[in-house]
Amino acid sequence: MRRELAAAAMELFATKGYEATTVDEIAAAAGVARRTFFRHFRSKEEAIFPDHDDTLVRAEAVLNAAPAHEHPLDTVCRGIKEVMRMYAARPEISVARYKLTREVPTLREAEIASVARYERLFTRYLLGHFDEHAHADDANDDPLLAEVAASAVVTAHNHVLRRWLRAGGQGDVEAQLDHAFAIVRKTFGTGIGAGRGSVPRPAAATAPATVSAHGEVLVTVARTDAPLDEVMRTIEEALKER
Amino acid sequence: MRRELAAAAMELFATKGYEATTVDEIAAAAGVARRTFFRHFRSKEEAIFPDHDDTLVRAEAVLNAAPAHEHPLDTVCRGIKEVMRMYAARPEISVARYKLTREVPTLREAEIASVARYERLFTRYLLGHFDEHAHADDANDDPLLAEVAASAVVTAHNHVLRRWLRAGGQGDVEAQLDHAFAIVRKTFGTGIGAGRGSVPRPAAATAPATVSAHGEVLVTVARTDAPLDEVMRTIEEALKER
Repeated sequence: MRRELAAAAMELFATKGYEATTVDEIAAAAGVARRTFFRHFRSKEEAIFPDHDDTLVRAEAVLNAAPAHEHPLDTVCRGIKEVMRMYAARPEISVARYKLTREVPTLREAEIASVARYERLFTRYLLGHFDEHAHADDANDDPLLAEVAASAVVTAHNHVLRRWLRAGGQGDVEAQLDHAFAIVRKTFGTGIGAGRGSVPRPAAATAPATVSAHGEVLVTVARTDAPLDEVMRTIEEALKER
Repeated sequence: MRRELAAAAMELFATKGYEATTVDEIAAAAGVARRTFFRHFRSKEEAIFPDHDDTLVRAEAVLNAAPAHEHPLDTVCRGIKEVMRMYAARPEISVARYKLTREVPTLREAEIASVARYERLFTRYLLGHFDEHAHADDANDDPLLAEVAASAVVTAHNHVLRRWLRAGGQGDVEAQLDHAFAIVRKTFGTGIGAGRGSVPRPAAATAPATVSAHGEVLVTVARTDAPLDEVMRTIEEALKER
C-alpha cells in the first residue's frame, strides 16, 4: 500500500504539479481513504521518498555486520551502496523524482535532510572505528576527520547518482559508484588508512619494506625497526628493476 | 540600514520567536517603512543572513586574485576563510543566529542553501585549475574529485565553525580553521596535490630523494631517474639517524 500510494503521488505530482496535488487526491488515486495515507506517511512530501527510512536501517545493518578486518571507510562505502541500490531499483521513478525535486524547493530540502541522516550515520560509525584502523595524530581531531571522510563518501555517491539521473538512469550505476570510490580512495584515502602519522604501513607486518613505482617517482615504506640491510636490499632491487 | 534591519530582525526573532515576528515589526523596530525592508531583503529569512551575498563575492575575489603558483586547494581554503571571518566578526550575533537556525527549519534550509553556493563556487574553481596542479588519472574523473575536494574543505570549515559556535564563540576560530585544514591536507590531501599518479613528488625537482619518518615507518620518495647511489645514501642516512 505504501508503494501504491507513493506511485500515485508521483504520478499526480508529475501531471498536476506538486503544489496543486492534495493528499485527498493521492489517496483517491490509490483507491484508499485519506486516513490510510496518513497511516503510511506524515506528509505529502514524505510520499515522494517512501524508502529512505528502510534504506537507512539497511545501511546501518551493513555497518553493524561488517567483518572486523574491514577498513571502516570500505564498510561505509558498502553502506551507502544500499542507498544507490534504492535509486537503481526503479530507474524511471528515480529520474522522474529527480526532475521534480529540482523544481520543488520543499522536496529538495526533504532530500537534503535525508542525505544528512546518512552522513551522520557514517560519521558516527567512522568515529567509533578509528581506534582500530585509522585516526588523526591527535585524537581531538578524530571528529573532524570522521566528518570529512563521511562527507567525501556521500559527495562521491551523490555525484555519481546525479550524473546517472541526468543521463536518464541509463548504465550500470553500481559499477560507476565502485569506480568513484576507487578514485576517491586512491586520491584522498591514503592518510585515513594509515594509523597515527598518516603514512601507509607496510603491506605485511613482517615485511621490512614495500616499494612501489609510479611514473617518475618511487615510493618506499619501511619499518624503522626492520634490519637495515634488508630494507636497503629491498629498495635497491626495486630501483634496479626500473 | 541593511545591518540595522538585520540587527532588529535578530533581536525580534530571539525575543518573540521567528514565526511570530512580522516584517512590519522588523521595519518598525529599525525605524523605517516596510518597503525599505524589501529594498534590502527579499524575505524575512534573508534578514537573518545579511552578509552571505557579499561574502560570496569576496570569496570569489580571493580565488580570482590567487597567485599562479598557489595550489588550488590552498586557494580554496583561503577563500572559505572569508566565510569564517564573516561569522567571527560578530561572535554574539553568530551564536544567537546559530541557536535560531537550529530551532527554525526554514532558517536551517536557508543556511544549507548558502553553504551550497560556496561549495559550487569552490568546485568550479578546482575544476578550472586541475590542469596546472592536480587532477585525476582520467580527466573524466576530474569533476568527481573537484566536488569531493570542495566538499572536504567546506565540511572542515563547517565542523570548526559549529564547534566554535557551540562553545559560545570563544577562542581564535581562524587559528582552529588553519589547524583543521592542515590536518585535512595531511590526511586526505596528498593525492590531489600530486599530479596524475597520486603520489607525492620529491620536494625539490633536483633532489634525488626525500625521506620522512613517522613513528614506526619511514617513507621515501625518490626520482627514478636519480643516480642510484645518491638515492641509497639518502635513505641509508635517514635510517641510521633513527
